[in-house]
Amino acid sequence: MTIASVSHIDYDTTPENLSAAQAEFSALLGPDNIDEDQETCVAHSGSRFASADSAHKPSLVLYPKHTEHVSSILKICSKRCIPVVSYSGGTGLSGALAAPHGGICIDFKDMAKIWDLHETDMDVTVQPGVGWMQLNAELAGKGFFFPPDPAPDARIGGMIAMGCSGTNAYRYGTMKDWVVSLTVVLADGTIVKTGNRPRKSSAGYDLTHLIVGSEGTLGIVTEAVLRLTPIPKNPHVAILTFSDTHLAVETALSIATSGAVFDALEFVDQSSLEVVNQSGLFEDRWAEYPTLFLRFSGDEATTQAHSALIKSLSERNKCLDVKISSDPEQVDAWWNVRKLMGKCLIMSMKPGDIFLASDAAVPRSRLADIIVETQEATADVGLFCSTLGHIGDGNVHVAFVCPQELRAKGEQLIQDVQRRALRMEGTITGEHGVGLSLRDMLIEEVGSGGVDMMRNIKLSLDPKGILNPEKIFRIQA
Amino acid sequence: MTIASVSHIDYDTTPENLSAAQAEFSALLGPDNIDEDQETCVAHSGSRFASADSAHKPSLVLYPKHTEHVSSILKICSKRCIPVVSYSGGTGLSGALAAPHGGICIDFKDMAKIWDLHETDMDVTVQPGVGWMQLNAELAGKGFFFPPDPAPDARIGGMIAMGCSGTNAYRYGTMKDWVVSLTVVLADGTIVKTGNRPRKSSAGYDLTHLIVGSEGTLGIVTEAVLRLTPIPKNPHVAILTFSDTHLAVETALSIATSGAVFDALEFVDQSSLEVVNQSGLFEDRWAEYPTLFLRFSGDEATTQAHSALIKSLSERNKCLDVKISSDPEQVDAWWNVRKLMGKCLIMSMKPGDIFLASDAAVPRSRLADIIVETQEATADVGLFCSTLGHIGDGNVHVAFVCPQELRAKGEQLIQDVQRRALRMEGTITGEHGVGLSLRDMLIEEVGSGGVDMMRNIKLSLDPKGILNPEKIFRIQA
Repeated sequence: MTIASVSHIDYDTTPENLSAAQAEFSALLGPDNIDEDQETCVAHSGSRFASADSAHKPSLVLYPKHTEHVSSILKICSKRCIPVVSYSGGTGLSGALAAPHGGICIDFKDMAKIWDLHETDMDVTVQPGVGWMQLNAELAGKGFFFPPDPAPDARIGGMIAMGCSGTNAYRYGTMKDWVVSLTVVLADGTIVKTGNRPRKSSAGYDLTHLIVGSEGTLGIVTEAVLRLTPIPKNPHVAILTFSDTHLAVETALSIATSGAVFDALEFVDQSSLEVVNQSGLFEDRWAEYPTLFLRFSGDEATTQAHSALIKSLSERNKCLDVKISSDPEQVDAWWNVRKLMGKCLIMSMKPGDIFLASDAAVPRSRLADIIVETQEATADVGLFCSTLGHIGDGNVHVAFVCPQELRAKGEQLIQDVQRRALRMEGTITGEHGVGLSLRDMLIEEVGSGGVDMMRNIKLSLDPKGILNPEKIFRIQA
Repeated sequence: MTIASVSHIDYDTTPENLSAAQAEFSALLGPDNIDEDQETCVAHSGSRFASADSAHKPSLVLYPKHTEHVSSILKICSKRCIPVVSYSGGTGLSGALAAPHGGICIDFKDMAKIWDLHETDMDVTVQPGVGWMQLNAELAGKGFFFPPDPAPDARIGGMIAMGCSGTNAYRYGTMKDWVVSLTVVLADGTIVKTGNRPRKSSAGYDLTHLIVGSEGTLGIVTEAVLRLTPIPKNPHVAILTFSDTHLAVETALSIATSGAVFDALEFVDQSSLEVVNQSGLFEDRWAEYPTLFLRFSGDEATTQAHSALIKSLSERNKCLDVKISSDPEQVDAWWNVRKLMGKCLIMSMKPGDIFLASDAAVPRSRLADIIVETQEATADVGLFCSTLGHIGDGNVHVAFVCPQELRAKGEQLIQDVQRRALRMEGTITGEHGVGLSLRDMLIEEVGSGGVDMMRNIKLSLDPKGILNPEKIFRIQA
C-alpha cells in the first residue's frame, strides 16, 4: 500500500478521551499503577542515547502486571484511538520510544519474571521487563547463558522489539536466533501465542520472527520463550594493537574466514580508546591505536590453536602489541572496557552536546573501505568521532559527540555513513533499528516496494495504527 | 481477519480466460516455454512423497528465464484472477504443490544460475532452480558449503518456500538461518529486494524471513543471496546400535547438552533399517535395532575428545555396537544410508500403497516419550511404520507405507502423532511445512488468533488470493 492510498488515521488524544481512558485504566490496574507525572512521561519518550523530546511524550505511563492487563489496555486504546508505545530498558538509539502523537506508554518494570527453565531443552520463559544481565546472572549456576548482549541495561522486551545483537552475535547470531516463540498482544487486544517450545518449526508464517525487530508496531510482546546455550568453557581474551586500520581489519578477516570458531571479533579505533582513557572508569591506560578485542574459548587444544593463529596473523600484519589472557579477572576486565565504551562516550559529553550514532553494516570485504572512508570524511570537520564495532559481522558503529550548533553537520555525516553502507551492499542499521531517525532512509535500502509491503502488513494487523505510530516508516502522508 | 469476514474470492479459470492468458504468456515467453501437456500438468501438482491429484492440477506450466518474466506473469494472473503455484525440485511432503483451484504453475528449471560468489563475505547469489547438491558441488573447490540438506533433489526455491532443514540443522540451523536476502515478486507483479548482503540488519520488518516458509503464498522468490560456511575439516561418522529406544535417546541428549559441538545427531529405528536392508541399495547389512547416526568434525584434539565422549556414553548406556570412522569413503557411505532412507521407504511401496508422513517436533526432553508412545500406538495396527529423525532438534519423522484401504487408519495415526507433539509443547511440523495436509490442524498450534494473523498478512499482500491458494490456512469459508 503506497502511503498516498492510506485512508486518514485519526488519533484521539483530547483531554476528554484521555481522561475517560485513564478512569478505565485505573479500574483495571489500580491508580498506583498509572503515572501522569510529566517528568516520568518525558523520560519514557527517550533513552540515554536518544534524547527525549517533550513534544513527543506520552500523557500517561502504565505499569501492567500480566498479559491480560496488556490485552485490556489495548482494547481500551483501540476503542479510543489512543497511540501506545512500550518501554522496558530505555537504551534504544533510534528514537523508537518517542511518542509523536502522544498517547500512553506501557512500562514493563512489573513484568520481570523468569520461569520454566528447562535444562534438557535449554530454554526458559521470561517477561519483557527482564534484563539480559539479570537473566544471565540467574542462569550462571546452571551452566547456561543467553547470548544476545546489547547495552548492559537493555531488557528482553526492547531487545525483541529492536531485533538487537551485540558482541556475541558473531558466533551466536542475533536476537531472532534466540527467540523460540512469543506471546503477543495485537492492537485490538487479541492474545496470540506464536508457538510452543520446539527447537524448530515450519508451521505457517514465521510470526515469531516477524515480531522480532518490528519495534512494537505490530504487537506488544508479553512473554518470550528463549533458547539458551552452555556457557563457553575456558574463555580467553586477546587485545591486538595495530598502527593502521587496514592491518587490523585484515587480521580480523583472516580469522573470520579461517574456519576457527571465535566467540567475538571487535574493532575499536584510537578515538574510542581516548574516551576510555578519559573516563576514569578503568585502571589501565590503553594505547590509543586501532585495536582488536577478540574472545575465544574451548578446550586446551582449541584455545592453544586459536592463540597460535592470533600470533601468526599478528606477526604477518605487523601488530604493535599482542596480549592474550585466560585469567578470569583479566578476561572480564578487558571485555568490560569494550562493553562500557558507549558509557565512556556519553561521559565525554559536555552540557549541551548531542550524541549522534550510526550502526551501518556492510559485507565484511568492504569493512576497511567504510571505516577508512568515514575516518577521512570526518577528519577535518571538528567533531569528535568514534568508530568501533562488531567487525566479525561487518557492523560498524560511528558515533559523534558534538555541540548543538554542529548538529546539522553531524547528522549529514551520519547519513553519509549510512549511504556509504548502501553503496557497499550493506544496511543502514545492523542492530539498532529504524525508529524515527532512519524511517525516511529505509526506502533507499528496501525500495518503495519493500516499505509498502511493510505498511500493508502493519495496517492489516493494526488498522487504526495505534501501535508505536510513525516508527520504521511513515504511516500516512 | 476471521475466515468468515473475508469477502468472496473469485478465481477465473474459464477456458476463455485461460486461453486469453495463454496468448499473453506466449507473447512473453515464446510458445516453447509453455506446456499444456496434461501429464506434465499433473506431475507438477505433486511430488514423489505427496502424490499428485489430477483434480488439483494446473492447466499450464510456464518456464520463465528471469525475474522480469515472473513479474509479467504475475501481472497477467493478477489482472485475470488466475491462481499461481511455483515448482522447483518437486520433493515436498505436504501437498504445497497441489493446485486445488487450477490455474498455472511456474517451473524454475530454466532459472538455475549461480553467480556472485563472494569468498571473503561467504555469500553467493542463486536462482530458485538451483539444487542444494549442485550448489555444494560447485562450491566444494572453494572450501565452502551451504548447510541446509533436505531431500537430495530439493532446490533452493522450494527450500525457501518450505523453510526446510535436514540433518545439518542441529549444528547449523534451518533454511532461514542461511538466507541473507531475497528478490521476491508479489502477487501484483511488484519486484521487492528485501535487502543487500550484510550479515545482519535491523532495517524494518524482517521481510526475508517472512517469505522463508510462506510456501509461495506471499510472493514468488526469483533470486536469493545465501550465506555459506567453511566445509568442516576431518569429518567423522559414528554409528551406535542400542537394544532400546530410551537408551539411544538418552545418549543423544547427553551429547546435545554436553557443550561439545557435533555436526548432526540422527536417530533411526529398527523398521527404517529393515527397509534399508531390503532396498538392495547398500552393500552392508545393518543390524535392525534403534541406531544413532552421529557426525562430528574438527582438529585432531576435538575429534578425539568427541570419540571419547561417544565411547563413554555408549558404555554407560549399554550400547550393543559402536563404530566410528574418519575414512572419507566410509563416512560418505554411512551418511548416505541416512540420507537415502526416504528413497528406501518409497522403494518399499507396493503398487497401490500410499505414503503418509509426519514430521512433528518436540522439546528434546520429550523425545523418548513421543517415539515410544508412537511405536506403541502403531504396534498392532498392521501398518508398516518407520520412525527416524533429527533427534538433536527434537524432530521426529514417522512414516507409514500402507495399502490404500487402510488410508483412513494411517491418516488418523499421523494426526495422533501431531496432536501428541502439541501436548508435549511441540509443533505439528518441524520442517516439511503445512501445505494442504496440515492446514486444519495449524489452528491447534497457533490458535485462531495466530491463523487470523497469517490470513491478514496474506490478504494484505495478495488481496485476490492468487498465490498458492488454500495452502497453510483456508483462505475463505
